[in-house]
Amino acid sequence: MSAIAADGLQVTSSAGFAGVFARVAPHMAALDAFLRGQLAEFEPEIRDMADYCIDTSGKRIRPALVFFSGWRGAGAPAPALVQVAAVVELVHLATLVHDDIMDEAEVRRSRPTAALKYGPAAAVLLGDALFAHALHLAARFPTTRVCEAVSESTRRVCAGEIVQTMRRRSTGLTRADYDRVIDLKTAELFRVSCALGASLGGYDDGFAADAARFGRHLGIAYQIYDDLADFFGREQRIGKTLGTDLASGKLTLPLIELRERLEPAERDALEAELQGRAEPRLERRLTQMRELGVFEAVAAEIERELARAEAALAPHAALPATAHLADLPHVLRSQVASLR
Amino acid sequence: MSAIAADGLQVTSSAGFAGVFARVAPHMAALDAFLRGQLAEFEPEIRDMADYCIDTSGKRIRPALVFFSGWRGAGAPAPALVQVAAVVELVHLATLVHDDIMDEAEVRRSRPTAALKYGPAAAVLLGDALFAHALHLAARFPTTRVCEAVSESTRRVCAGEIVQTMRRRSTGLTRADYDRVIDLKTAELFRVSCALGASLGGYDDGFAADAARFGRHLGIAYQIYDDLADFFGREQRIGKTLGTDLASGKLTLPLIELRERLEPAERDALEAELQGRAEPRLERRLTQMRELGVFEAVAAEIERELARAEAALAPHAALPATAHLADLPHVLRSQVASLR
Repeated sequence: MSAIAADGLQVTSSAGFAGVFARVAPHMAALDAFLRGQLAEFEPEIRDMADYCIDTSGKRIRPALVFFSGWRGAGAPAPALVQVAAVVELVHLATLVHDDIMDEAEVRRSRPTAALKYGPAAAVLLGDALFAHALHLAARFPTTRVCEAVSESTRRVCAGEIVQTMRRRSTGLTRADYDRVIDLKTAELFRVSCALGASLGGYDDGFAADAARFGRHLGIAYQIYDDLADFFGREQRIGKTLGTDLASGKLTLPLIELRERLEPAERDALEAELQGRAEPRLERRLTQMRELGVFEAVAAEIERELARAEAALAPHAALPATAHLADLPHVLRSQVASLR
Repeated sequence: MSAIAADGLQVTSSAGFAGVFARVAPHMAALDAFLRGQLAEFEPEIRDMADYCIDTSGKRIRPALVFFSGWRGAGAPAPALVQVAAVVELVHLATLVHDDIMDEAEVRRSRPTAALKYGPAAAVLLGDALFAHALHLAARFPTTRVCEAVSESTRRVCAGEIVQTMRRRSTGLTRADYDRVIDLKTAELFRVSCALGASLGGYDDGFAADAARFGRHLGIAYQIYDDLADFFGREQRIGKTLGTDLASGKLTLPLIELRERLEPAERDALEAELQGRAEPRLERRLTQMRELGVFEAVAAEIERELARAEAALAPHAALPATAHLADLPHVLRSQVASLR
């Protein structure tokens, strides 16, 4: 592909997203400064708690999508892009705070979750406050467009999470159910990050729509990768506990693919584990996934989504934004490869 | 006071808020129709759950504040007022859903809470979705003003709830701590309902600011009344369990006033109950509250806030909105009297 893409691949094979995101380092620094500045707007009683959630250790993928989609060339980051990056990141952080309550997760980014540190009740409200502040920032744009797009996306993200939660420990889920959930819970915020980035970067509606499509398919691919990493990742590296999906009865794509490949007796055993009727046997399931080609099947699904993401950008090869966005599928490919 | 106020008192001594709210019955019907119409915008998977939360059995105090503050005379309700009433009510419903998770409440408005019906995890997300949709509606006004005001208020409401939650079972709270919490968690949404109602009703900034002050003090009075009703109400009538504040270690004004009046040994016993070290003795505490004049002391605090609310409206006696708003303190007075 382009020279930038080739560069990107080189860098990212060792550094993952961080390699490509280094290109927007000044933007990320501006985002961090902006987010820190927002703390003063929180009520004094909850400022420290908000500060704990707005940490700087996350990957900041959604802000990167904003910055890349709105990229017009090197130079100081446009204030509108920084502000909208803060909006999508705050929405994301709010959902993480609430996710960790429901998952009873104790570790996130290698430190205690807000739910563990402050208790689940305070964490519910802290997530609410972060979300409210995100919308408050969205309302500071000259028109209601950002607020409208972000609030709609947030409702869709929540709907996806609700469906996932209600179906937990249910073993009758289909691939279509899984697709719908990740489209809502993950792809939606990727999509809106690209759409708003492109618009606020001054690109026309045609590119904004295709950037949105790119973001959606990248988001789907990213969530499938994340679900794969829950089995094949290294705990230290992702900064969270592995095998949580099996333990919590969340039927993700690797488990759907495994279930399809198992003999009836083993399938029953897996379903008992998913339903919480039997102890989850992570090592056994991992071995089976390796032996039955689950990794390859899931990786092929990721590849299909990445190809769709790339196709969305094809008509816009000449745009400065495209050169950067086009590297992200390569980064994700190398991330998937590193799980093997 | 005014003839309307006298009428209001007559009606409301038997019917409470419902008597005065009957004057905006067409507005409330329009609100219900509007809220029902919104269900189609929720994702199909969560529509029934949203429907369950958007029930019509609530008092709808905040929408009434919107309608009364924006009142220009009899006639069809202005669409902008209906829409902003829906926004504040959805925010309120979202906070109720989250409150009931934290309080582990099982009954609200005489039926199972969303937390009980769908489980706490789904209820967290359902509250989020309701809130997101509220902001989505707020973003449909021509300017960002509604979105900005509502998102800021929501963050303040959450901050108040967080402080209350973090301080649960703590017995060192002062009256100032209590005041701060109810100012944030309850008075804020009353305040913004009046401010937005007045503005969208076409009143000038001077009245909008005073209507906001009125709403704030009415909200403080209302929360103190609600805390009093947790001890002195009749369970069937309020549709929720009594004595929950004592049981959950929430130091509300009746308990603060009681604590101040108890001999050291009894005070220690009360603190042990609040801290969860001893079984709460609701009947004993109620008897003490009656004997030691706690009811009267708390009622006097409510009266002080109601007088402040009325003072805020004093310069605007000639406005059509004022005639209606001015009845609300009388309704609350009769509600308090009915607890005796």
